[in-house]
Amino acid sequence: MKNIHKTIHFTIPGFLCFIVCIIMAVNGQAEDGYRLWLRYDKITNAQVLTSYKTSITELVLLGNSPTVTASRKELQTGLSGLLGIQLPEATTVTREGALLIGTPENSPVIASLNLTTSLQAIGKEGFLIQTLKVQGKNSTVITANSEVGVLYGVFHFLKLLQTHQNIQKLAIQSSPKLTHRILNHWDNLDRTVERGYAGFSLWEWHKLPGYIDPRYTDYARANASIGINGTVLTNVNANALVITPAYLEKVKALADVFRPYGIKVYLTARFSAPVEIGGLKTADPLDPGVKAWWNAKADEIYKYVPDFGGFLVKANSEGQPGPQNYGRNHADGANMLADALAPYGGIVMWRAFVYDNKVPDDRAKQAYTEFVPLDGKFRDNVLVQVKNGPVDFQPREPFHPLFGAMPKTPLMVEFQITQEYLGFSTHLAYLSTLFEECLDSDTYAKGPGSTVAKVIDGSLHAHKISGMAGVANIGTDRNWTGHPFGQANWYSYGRLAWDPYVSSEAIADEWIKMTFSNEAAVVNPVKQLMLHSREAIVNYMMPLGLHHLFGWDHHYGPGPWIKNKPRADWTSVYYHQADSLGIGFNRTVSGSNALSQYFPVVREKFSNPKTCPEEYLLWFHHLPWDYTLKSGKNLWEGLVQHYYMGVDSVRGMQKTWNSLEGKIDADRFAQVQQLLKVQEKEAILWRNSCVLYFQTFSRRPIPAGYEKPDKPLEYYEKLEYKFVPGI
Amino acid sequence: MKNIHKTIHFTIPGFLCFIVCIIMAVNGQAEDGYRLWLRYDKITNAQVLTSYKTSITELVLLGNSPTVTASRKELQTGLSGLLGIQLPEATTVTREGALLIGTPENSPVIASLNLTTSLQAIGKEGFLIQTLKVQGKNSTVITANSEVGVLYGVFHFLKLLQTHQNIQKLAIQSSPKLTHRILNHWDNLDRTVERGYAGFSLWEWHKLPGYIDPRYTDYARANASIGINGTVLTNVNANALVITPAYLEKVKALADVFRPYGIKVYLTARFSAPVEIGGLKTADPLDPGVKAWWNAKADEIYKYVPDFGGFLVKANSEGQPGPQNYGRNHADGANMLADALAPYGGIVMWRAFVYDNKVPDDRAKQAYTEFVPLDGKFRDNVLVQVKNGPVDFQPREPFHPLFGAMPKTPLMVEFQITQEYLGFSTHLAYLSTLFEECLDSDTYAKGPGSTVAKVIDGSLHAHKISGMAGVANIGTDRNWTGHPFGQANWYSYGRLAWDPYVSSEAIADEWIKMTFSNEAAVVNPVKQLMLHSREAIVNYMMPLGLHHLFGWDHHYGPGPWIKNKPRADWTSVYYHQADSLGIGFNRTVSGSNALSQYFPVVREKFSNPKTCPEEYLLWFHHLPWDYTLKSGKNLWEGLVQHYYMGVDSVRGMQKTWNSLEGKIDADRFAQVQQLLKVQEKEAILWRNSCVLYFQTFSRRPIPAGYEKPDKPLEYYEKLEYKFVPGI
Repeated sequence: MKNIHKTIHFTIPGFLCFIVCIIMAVNGQAEDGYRLWLRYDKITNAQVLTSYKTSITELVLLGNSPTVTASRKELQTGLSGLLGIQLPEATTVTREGALLIGTPENSPVIASLNLTTSLQAIGKEGFLIQTLKVQGKNSTVITANSEVGVLYGVFHFLKLLQTHQNIQKLAIQSSPKLTHRILNHWDNLDRTVERGYAGFSLWEWHKLPGYIDPRYTDYARANASIGINGTVLTNVNANALVITPAYLEKVKALADVFRPYGIKVYLTARFSAPVEIGGLKTADPLDPGVKAWWNAKADEIYKYVPDFGGFLVKANSEGQPGPQNYGRNHADGANMLADALAPYGGIVMWRAFVYDNKVPDDRAKQAYTEFVPLDGKFRDNVLVQVKNGPVDFQPREPFHPLFGAMPKTPLMVEFQITQEYLGFSTHLAYLSTLFEECLDSDTYAKGPGSTVAKVIDGSLHAHKISGMAGVANIGTDRNWTGHPFGQANWYSYGRLAWDPYVSSEAIADEWIKMTFSNEAAVVNPVKQLMLHSREAIVNYMMPLGLHHLFGWDHHYGPGPWIKNKPRADWTSVYYHQADSLGIGFNRTVSGSNALSQYFPVVREKFSNPKTCPEEYLLWFHHLPWDYTLKSGKNLWEGLVQHYYMGVDSVRGMQKTWNSLEGKIDADRFAQVQQLLKVQEKEAILWRNSCVLYFQTFSRRPIPAGYEKPDKPLEYYEKLEYKFVPGI
Repeated sequence: MKNIHKTIHFTIPGFLCFIVCIIMAVNGQAEDGYRLWLRYDKITNAQVLTSYKTSITELVLLGNSPTVTASRKELQTGLSGLLGIQLPEATTVTREGALLIGTPENSPVIASLNLTTSLQAIGKEGFLIQTLKVQGKNSTVITANSEVGVLYGVFHFLKLLQTHQNIQKLAIQSSPKLTHRILNHWDNLDRTVERGYAGFSLWEWHKLPGYIDPRYTDYARANASIGINGTVLTNVNANALVITPAYLEKVKALADVFRPYGIKVYLTARFSAPVEIGGLKTADPLDPGVKAWWNAKADEIYKYVPDFGGFLVKANSEGQPGPQNYGRNHADGANMLADALAPYGGIVMWRAFVYDNKVPDDRAKQAYTEFVPLDGKFRDNVLVQVKNGPVDFQPREPFHPLFGAMPKTPLMVEFQITQEYLGFSTHLAYLSTLFEECLDSDTYAKGPGSTVAKVIDGSLHAHKISGMAGVANIGTDRNWTGHPFGQANWYSYGRLAWDPYVSSEAIADEWIKMTFSNEAAVVNPVKQLMLHSREAIVNYMMPLGLHHLFGWDHHYGPGPWIKNKPRADWTSVYYHQADSLGIGFNRTVSGSNALSQYFPVVREKFSNPKTCPEEYLLWFHHLPWDYTLKSGKNLWEGLVQHYYMGVDSVRGMQKTWNSLEGKIDADRFAQVQQLLKVQEKEAILWRNSCVLYFQTFSRRPIPAGYEKPDKPLEYYEKLEYKFVPGI
């Protein structure tokens, strides 16, 4: 190599291949999942790549605001990665293939394009992506009424490239169907995360505000890419310290990072804060001193964070203080806070997940009982946040009867993205199907078609604000969610909050393409695996509508035998009601009559075991062991069959996954492979524990042909787990 | 771009530049510190690169054992990164520039090279790197007596390239001076880390053994690269559960990952384990039942981990149980465990950091008092682990008087890499200078030259086993150590454990080159900054030998005013003894006489304030406020001057760092810049708090010319910190 002026010759395809090899070598250790679905590796399909490079030749994006800068940076990172080009910037369209990006306010060229009608249709956060002739040149225009709308459009455009869509003739118009699309972090100030299985809290409170972890920005990017526009930083089991000045300056630092990405910060308000940090004698919401204290607190918070989103409140539930401590009701409490926030445009999200110290006849009924009478009594800036089902984030629940039952109150749905009851971060469960099942449920509140989606998007009862809350599955784990497929749940939650009518299949399709590969040989099997994954867990954890059979307190592993706890509704026997005659919770008129809370069509359907969908059968009915299922099997046999099907499904998932070796990067392939082995082991644990336990009531054999549990029931009952994460 | 067969022409330098650009673009987000010093980016210096490519043309490395595979993988990763080549492998030397790697056992070519004498000189873990003619070709030979020795050589060779050393005529022979080079993780089973400031524990106990985080391997690589050969997984404040089967299978999984890298796993043994998990009535080390229990426990552990390293024990200290609970002494306790481990080659590391429930006249004396009488009473496989200084990991302490005082017992030195008392992970403190200061201290145990280094490497008293323990600063933070410069402390600890005679400057030099850049314009200023960084902290936290003035319990921030706690030696006033007459702890014959524990030459030097080094002045002496320092200033003025110098140094560090903008990647540049701002703020907090507090005793003004504290003492005294990490 003495002649340093020698030249090297490549053909173009050879050269591209060479570059890809270099990138792969450099990124040898990079498939750790940190990039989530925002992976911008060079497109290897030469035809697609060539087509994109022809269509994308210059960037016209004016302005330097933080949000515009975020758009520019994302585009340049994305395009330099995906296309391997540094896109030249111009101040106006100068050639074919321009990307023209901006709002009518910050871009005179866009203002001149006559898009007013389209823009009026998409609201503040929506976006347009259109192929247009601009100044005589074929251009792709990404525009919106706000800079954040443009940013959403930019992420959407990058997704088109990531998923190899044709971008020749684009005419995309998209706007969110819900106004508040929010993550709830159950993160404590000591960085533990209640029900968190992906490490610890992202928020490094001790180092804030002086040290800003670069990860905060990547968190914001990920959320903006799916349209999430709010984050509640702290646990619903709240600590009042977070609204003291020492913490507010830390909250401000995070809000400053998130703001350019359209994400507002919210906090949980501890109802007793006026006493705990304010030195007052009461937290009575009707006490003038208490009201004044919260008003002053709101003034103070907005000095730190001028666009503070508001409060999320868990009150009078599981020991949290609330207005009932003072003989007031939920509306009294929510309205006091709402009044303090209203001058600044803040909102209150008041949780309907309540149960008080008196054990009710049926915990599933309590939210409805307490909240329906308050319909119409909440301020305009209050949303009542209702869990998807009436018990507690089980692998499957019927929809919550509150949906549709409070027409005068905007209701948010609260989903749990973190897998408290779905195998923590070692089980592969694509939860979009769970979310979708709830959203598609018909409440019949205003006749057929009154789906939960229409309740929560505000369309059924014409509300101006609407929302979805997702309890985050995000932590310090290098890949954010522990399980690589946990990322799909964060993703699908955001997509459904933007549009609760999109299908889980469509979401899975784009997520797989962005996250793993565009190859059909990957996309199709992975999609099938995902779409059936939650049902597998239902089968081995809670078939036929059984529920809440989890390990005591930590909720890890099976605990159908749990009884004799401080409250009946903290036991498993309360929920399964198994005895020598049969099994299931009777919620019909002859039982707790929780069914009375549903609208008549639903109530009637669910009340009759013959018309009740079998997946909810034991949720609503106590049935004899020899009750005949639709399959013709009796209840005991059917139950056993489901438990075994659950384990078989996991084995099937393993087979599918193993067939992808070499088609997916080795790092994530190995991770998922290991996790599926853990899942199989735990699925067997669930199956054996539950079958053996329920057998003590049914006194019937495990039907022939099934592998027999290799340990006696006592073995499973004695298993103890220490230092289980998430509590 | 229709003609896809066009060719692209580059000159070679242009081409290289282009590749670098691509790599930098791809790695845009990659400088997150995760790679530590094992950064293998393409060498940009064309001359160096060309030279290396000529000297490294093929790899001859036989075998497929896990350790050989680790060597091969590291080399291929390293060379493909640094040189941008995929090195062809051959079974024997076929061309000039071969890399011939292996042991005489696994490589016939190496066996034929006549290196027996050299190999005999380097022991089991040492390595040789030599430029030799092999089969007539110029080759680089990396060999050792063990596969792990070869792996150490491979890392060393890669370091030569990373630091741009000439590799034309290598004749390197290196072997560790200490047999046990160990990290102590104070990690709890719930993943909190006592005194951990870099997130949480790496060990995901809940997911083990089923899920093996890829990070475990990178942890092992990093340790092997600096010669660390042991890791204590659990906190010295121990939990007996870790030696139950449920955890031992998890420990085994980690040991299996670490083994190929020459790293043995150790555990902390809770002395009361026989009672807590064994169901015995006593843990008396002389009780036959207790001995039998530990013997059986050792048998059990070695079934899981055949090369288990042994136990680290904190006994009868800070509430931990120990032999004294049964009227036995430390030797009785240590020997019982040593006997259980001896059949398997395991060791016991018994900590000398003890203080019992009776507050002694001077806590600094207690370890010596308890341990010296036991010299000669420990089994051969016991090491006594002694903190570098007699109090507790202060920013500066004189060396521990036990060093040299137990000639019949191998002593390990225990350093704290985690910055409990040195600014957590927000202060830049290069601790190698602290370690070096201790190692270079002359105990005079056997006359001049009896340094601590010679005590702990076993050479002074001819011990067969020797060791160094470092309390790890490693956690789940993406860059492992929180502060990017915390990595230098992990690195320098390992380097000093391998060779306690190497200089901090030399270590800094290579670390900077590997971690940041080989450019002199980076290396020199960063080195200066590092070498003076610890002294800056001494100045603003504990000038002139003051010590233990830290915030109560969490040890965050200043707390010189702390008094009235359950024990006198848990207060600050106990240590500084400030009054209207003067300040300092009198450890001379007229005081606690702790000085009597040192050998005469040292004792005499330290006993006289005029000959006592000023950095230890108030450690050993209580002196009047108007005592004249060597500078001519009185004690009060000198003290104030040190506090102000501390803050000034931090400002100087900021200037130095800011001058490097553009010469260091933007990510780490910004991180360190932010952290230095935090450090400045906290340094001012320390200075103002201490100066104002001590002023209440000295009743003298802050000399003219210094910026005055902007808040009164009461303000500082009232500052409260919640949820401080590390406890």
